[in-house]
Amino acid sequence: MTRRLVECVPNFSEGRRQDVIDAIVAPFRNTPRVHLLDYRADPDHNRLVVSLVGEPGPLQETLLQASRAAVARIDMRRHRGGHPRIGAVDVIPFVPLRHFTMEECVLLARGFARRYADELQIPVYLYESAAVRPEHRSLEQVRKGQFEALVSDGLGSESRAPDVGPSTLHPSAGATAIGARAFLVAFNVNLASGDLDAARSIARAIRTSSGGLPFVKAVGIALEGHGMVQVSINLTDYRVTSIHRAFAAVRDEAALRGIEVAESEIYGLVPAEALIDAARTSLMLAGFDASQVLDLRLLDLAGA
Amino acid sequence: MTRRLVECVPNFSEGRRQDVIDAIVAPFRNTPRVHLLDYRADPDHNRLVVSLVGEPGPLQETLLQASRAAVARIDMRRHRGGHPRIGAVDVIPFVPLRHFTMEECVLLARGFARRYADELQIPVYLYESAAVRPEHRSLEQVRKGQFEALVSDGLGSESRAPDVGPSTLHPSAGATAIGARAFLVAFNVNLASGDLDAARSIARAIRTSSGGLPFVKAVGIALEGHGMVQVSINLTDYRVTSIHRAFAAVRDEAALRGIEVAESEIYGLVPAEALIDAARTSLMLAGFDASQVLDLRLLDLAGA
Repeated sequence: MTRRLVECVPNFSEGRRQDVIDAIVAPFRNTPRVHLLDYRADPDHNRLVVSLVGEPGPLQETLLQASRAAVARIDMRRHRGGHPRIGAVDVIPFVPLRHFTMEECVLLARGFARRYADELQIPVYLYESAAVRPEHRSLEQVRKGQFEALVSDGLGSESRAPDVGPSTLHPSAGATAIGARAFLVAFNVNLASGDLDAARSIARAIRTSSGGLPFVKAVGIALEGHGMVQVSINLTDYRVTSIHRAFAAVRDEAALRGIEVAESEIYGLVPAEALIDAARTSLMLAGFDASQVLDLRLLDLAGA
Repeated sequence: MTRRLVECVPNFSEGRRQDVIDAIVAPFRNTPRVHLLDYRADPDHNRLVVSLVGEPGPLQETLLQASRAAVARIDMRRHRGGHPRIGAVDVIPFVPLRHFTMEECVLLARGFARRYADELQIPVYLYESAAVRPEHRSLEQVRKGQFEALVSDGLGSESRAPDVGPSTLHPSAGATAIGARAFLVAFNVNLASGDLDAARSIARAIRTSSGGLPFVKAVGIALEGHGMVQVSINLTDYRVTSIHRAFAAVRDEAALRGIEVAESEIYGLVPAEALIDAARTSLMLAGFDASQVLDLRLLDLAGA
């Protein structure tokens, strides 16, 4: 029995009000063929990141329900937080997981975007592999200037025009980016320092867009109340730039600035392979194969 | 949604007659929630070693079925083979794997031993972590003199008295050792040196028996043809002494002798948890939970 599974990691612009978080997450619980793997609300980012795995049909239904709950409760005109965002439902990426190709994921994302825009009357940008216009391929580009810029500039310009749905911004819920992409590892390195400029400078040094490591997005942010700054990293292809390579790059750049790493964190889910690669490096393992990992053998057997 | 998994490696005293081997292995195939990972029959040892992973309930049922098949077909009075043994079903070790503690494994082994002894009328020795008497803790001690010594000496002496079940030997099936132990990780560290004395000295420095790290067995050996020496390690409880701790100990001891580590290797299977722990350490991961590992979550879901 091949069960077609898609991962989805919708991000909602609420990381503080527990009742709102609960209302958004509720549809993801106890829905047959949809598994709520994880959800994390970050008060500094004022953002909720949900990790789901499910079959394409039921997954779309629950995403629409959760989005309605978010749109009814979040007003972007009053939203403040440390993470870039354009809407109450900020981004919905579909990730092919099991017995599902990237091409199928692109069709899924585009089809879902039409339903989403119709039912919620929210303009949608199709991004990454689901993009229909090259200028919307990059999520950074889509979110440039964030919700506030969409309000002030409007959606009239060629680069701002949405790909699906209404041609004007939803007054309170803004816009949404819907896409298809490979598995993303969210990895943050906290520095034993309050120097935000240093964190930003380290982020610039390691990220792809300014000539650093490939498939790395990074920003420096302050962790309010922790007396620390953070290099917040998205690894968009951990098979090219691994977690431990990104970690080493931050550690080395920090050392150049006389700053030590305090700790790191993986935000949300991570494929076992990415951690095994890190172990392989730190243990100087030679000739190691993932089929030696007992639990992964079991996963293959369980899926048979 | 957490799937509790136990590994079990039962050993049966039949490595030659294919029809008997098939009859013993049959219950392990196609049983829901029990996975037959591997089985190897050795004609010289005249012994069958089976590797299983399963949920505790179904695992016990299939073990009883397979044991009945073995007891009906194996007569220890006529059994000859190169491996120490005391019974048709010689040894059944339970190993905690996922969402299962050693304490739970001890209770599982003891509870299973009672059912096994009752249903099959075979005396049982509880060994390793499941032992109730210190003289039965070591499997070597339990098997001393083998089936033939149990026949000639009887079970009357204090050291021979079984822990569970009848006080006399089963005439054809002998006795069985049932225990609980940790997953054994075979981990070797190769040194960029041909100095065998150094490898032996490092092995002595890190192993439990000479005052080193707990749950570590280690010997220094020469790798013929590689111009290297190896510290060959068995980690008998990686939850106490982790792979990376053993690696760091070897690396540090080698450095004291002016020797560098060339590479390491894991021999055979390893639980994902052991590698994830290594990654956690090298990446300075804080607040990381194994439930964030996508593949392990899916493994749990596959069993739900």
